[in-house]
Amino acid sequence: MSKIVIKLDEHTFASPDRIERITKKIINEKNNGFEVVVVVPFIHLIDEKLRQYAFTLSENPIQRELDSIRSTNTQITSSLLTIALNKRGYNAVSLTGWQAGISTITPNRNVLIEHIESENILSHLRNGEITIIAGGQGIDENNNITLLGEGGVETTAVGVAVAIDAERVEIYTNETGVFTADPKIVKDAHQIKQMSYDEMLELSLLGSKIIHPRAVELAKKYNMTIVIGSSTENVPGTVIKGEVEMERNLIVRGIAYETDIIRLTVGYDSYEQASLASLFTTLADNNINVDIIVQAVIDGVKPTVSFSIDKEVFAEAIKVLEMNKQLLGFSFADFEVGLAKVSIVGSGMVSNPGVAARMFDRLKNEQIQVKMVSTSEIKVSVVVPQDDMVRAANALHDEFNLVEELV
Amino acid sequence: MSKIVIKLDEHTFASPDRIERITKKIINEKNNGFEVVVVVPFIHLIDEKLRQYAFTLSENPIQRELDSIRSTNTQITSSLLTIALNKRGYNAVSLTGWQAGISTITPNRNVLIEHIESENILSHLRNGEITIIAGGQGIDENNNITLLGEGGVETTAVGVAVAIDAERVEIYTNETGVFTADPKIVKDAHQIKQMSYDEMLELSLLGSKIIHPRAVELAKKYNMTIVIGSSTENVPGTVIKGEVEMERNLIVRGIAYETDIIRLTVGYDSYEQASLASLFTTLADNNINVDIIVQAVIDGVKPTVSFSIDKEVFAEAIKVLEMNKQLLGFSFADFEVGLAKVSIVGSGMVSNPGVAARMFDRLKNEQIQVKMVSTSEIKVSVVVPQDDMVRAANALHDEFNLVEELV
Repeated sequence: MSKIVIKLDEHTFASPDRIERITKKIINEKNNGFEVVVVVPFIHLIDEKLRQYAFTLSENPIQRELDSIRSTNTQITSSLLTIALNKRGYNAVSLTGWQAGISTITPNRNVLIEHIESENILSHLRNGEITIIAGGQGIDENNNITLLGEGGVETTAVGVAVAIDAERVEIYTNETGVFTADPKIVKDAHQIKQMSYDEMLELSLLGSKIIHPRAVELAKKYNMTIVIGSSTENVPGTVIKGEVEMERNLIVRGIAYETDIIRLTVGYDSYEQASLASLFTTLADNNINVDIIVQAVIDGVKPTVSFSIDKEVFAEAIKVLEMNKQLLGFSFADFEVGLAKVSIVGSGMVSNPGVAARMFDRLKNEQIQVKMVSTSEIKVSVVVPQDDMVRAANALHDEFNLVEELV
Repeated sequence: MSKIVIKLDEHTFASPDRIERITKKIINEKNNGFEVVVVVPFIHLIDEKLRQYAFTLSENPIQRELDSIRSTNTQITSSLLTIALNKRGYNAVSLTGWQAGISTITPNRNVLIEHIESENILSHLRNGEITIIAGGQGIDENNNITLLGEGGVETTAVGVAVAIDAERVEIYTNETGVFTADPKIVKDAHQIKQMSYDEMLELSLLGSKIIHPRAVELAKKYNMTIVIGSSTENVPGTVIKGEVEMERNLIVRGIAYETDIIRLTVGYDSYEQASLASLFTTLADNNINVDIIVQAVIDGVKPTVSFSIDKEVFAEAIKVLEMNKQLLGFSFADFEVGLAKVSIVGSGMVSNPGVAARMFDRLKNEQIQVKMVSTSEIKVSVVVPQDDMVRAANALHDEFNLVEELV
């Protein structure tokens, strides 16, 4: 019998009503003849209160215990959903990370899935039980409960799907799928039917909250099909898989944007003083994430390096730069606020040189000033004034014919 | 190194302040050179809300999932205490039931500890870690999370103590130990220094909330010393062990009482119709606990059977009797409210016949009417009017010289 893994989102658990509704969708898949595994997310039911309690006891509670406390969140969620499915007359069973056989390792600071011993899951599926797994958790080699961190729930879903050889993973969200651009800002935006792992990966990295890049990477590695779909509506979602029909493949697949970007520029008196390594190491040590980095190296001009950061870390970044001015050896720093990032993504770019040029050209025609540029094999990002962001996104959506997407 | 197991009570977790205080006591034991295991209880932090949620989803949620949800309670408690101990600079680690190696079986409706694979606990103790175990939980042979039910937390403490060969189990309570009678009603009541398992067992069965009889039975089976003591004050507690110093052993060790007892009497027209078996089976099937049972068999008098029940189940008991009147074959039923039970307990009774007679005699002199009587090898209970309960308890306390207890 074919198996599918469904990953639910937090909204599903906002009320008993919503749980009722999702049980219908799950039962539907079961009645379609699938063996169904459901991976449940963390919900805001109890976490904050417990965290506060823990931090009252110690300003620096150790991670192992915080993880053990937080792991109870998805454990509880999995039992609640199981109860709701039972109520509708379907056999279901909840499994914690360790009960589902999920082993983790922590090579650096990140907890990763090492192995999934799937026998327990498979035996419940063979019994005809809908198997509900607490997402984002596992155990390490010493039987300590571990949390998979950011993107852990989606990663659990993909990992389990690979381990039990499922046909696909369905990621249920508030949206009906992935769009060519945010419909709120690009009026012609529409849902994408199919895309490649790399395209989804770039969109995820560009801030799409639908699925964490980590889970996409895992799916890509094992060629596991992902469907992004709605948890409430019955419409086809966006299919993410290895090979998208070649001929119909568009150069640009989608447009992403990010607001509230700030450009910081640091200038040096001479090249000898300009150490990019020490600059970005210092920022990283202070947990300041830098996105686009541009270094201007022009003869006869004093060297500068510009980088973009999120508004949230701006004050902290300024503080860190000031405190380390001598160490870092720069002579001045300035910044520009009110910027936004607009990106085009598409694996067709690899074989279509000139995409970036076409992008710049169109933006120039629209009289939109490009402040910074960053490119990857399947993505070009530009930083523009935030006031021009919507115009830029719409222009690029038009420029690359996303309106006419056929697949 | 000697090991001890400490069982905390719920009051300990009423506030971060109290947790702070208990950590001092635990650290004290550690500094005294013990390897320390702590077993934590269920606390009223989150349970009710989650139960309500579960019952919103289904009026009859299955036990496995309710157990899994409720098991997170002591799991969270164990982590919170671990965090508090860490904060004070002591290595500590929390263990769930399965992490502590606790396997359960469910031969009938009760979940029992089958085995404790203590290697993980011992290895943490060897590392110098104070080991905090989530009380009242384990896993069955299929790795399902199970709850030990009533008295499960104390039973975990005693079970773990046996498994790791601890020197003793310390049961921390709101009291400083076990008293000869409730100090609130008997002014001369004082704390007992030592008592036998059987004596504690009878006191527990008589409604003392200090320790569940199930845990006492387990301690008796493995001859594990229990100390009942205060979680806040530093005074010696009551030691419960197999052999209490023989010569100083008093005939009566303590006095217990229970209020709000109701006597129900059922009468039959003839002995042929009087089936005690079907009467008490019917009551048990409806979860009505019967305490004292007295059958009067007198020539020439119609047979009756009287039994005592708690006020809480009175309405239900009447309903069950009415519904089954024909089946049970009785001709009338009546009841008496406003009663209380007073009991004397002491293993010295076994070798001292006439204790019950002395008890009845004293009560008669006090003009207290005895409504029902029940005896065991080391206990005599009488049901008296509730208005006379305090007088009865004080008189018996005096009669058996509990005031002058030497040990």
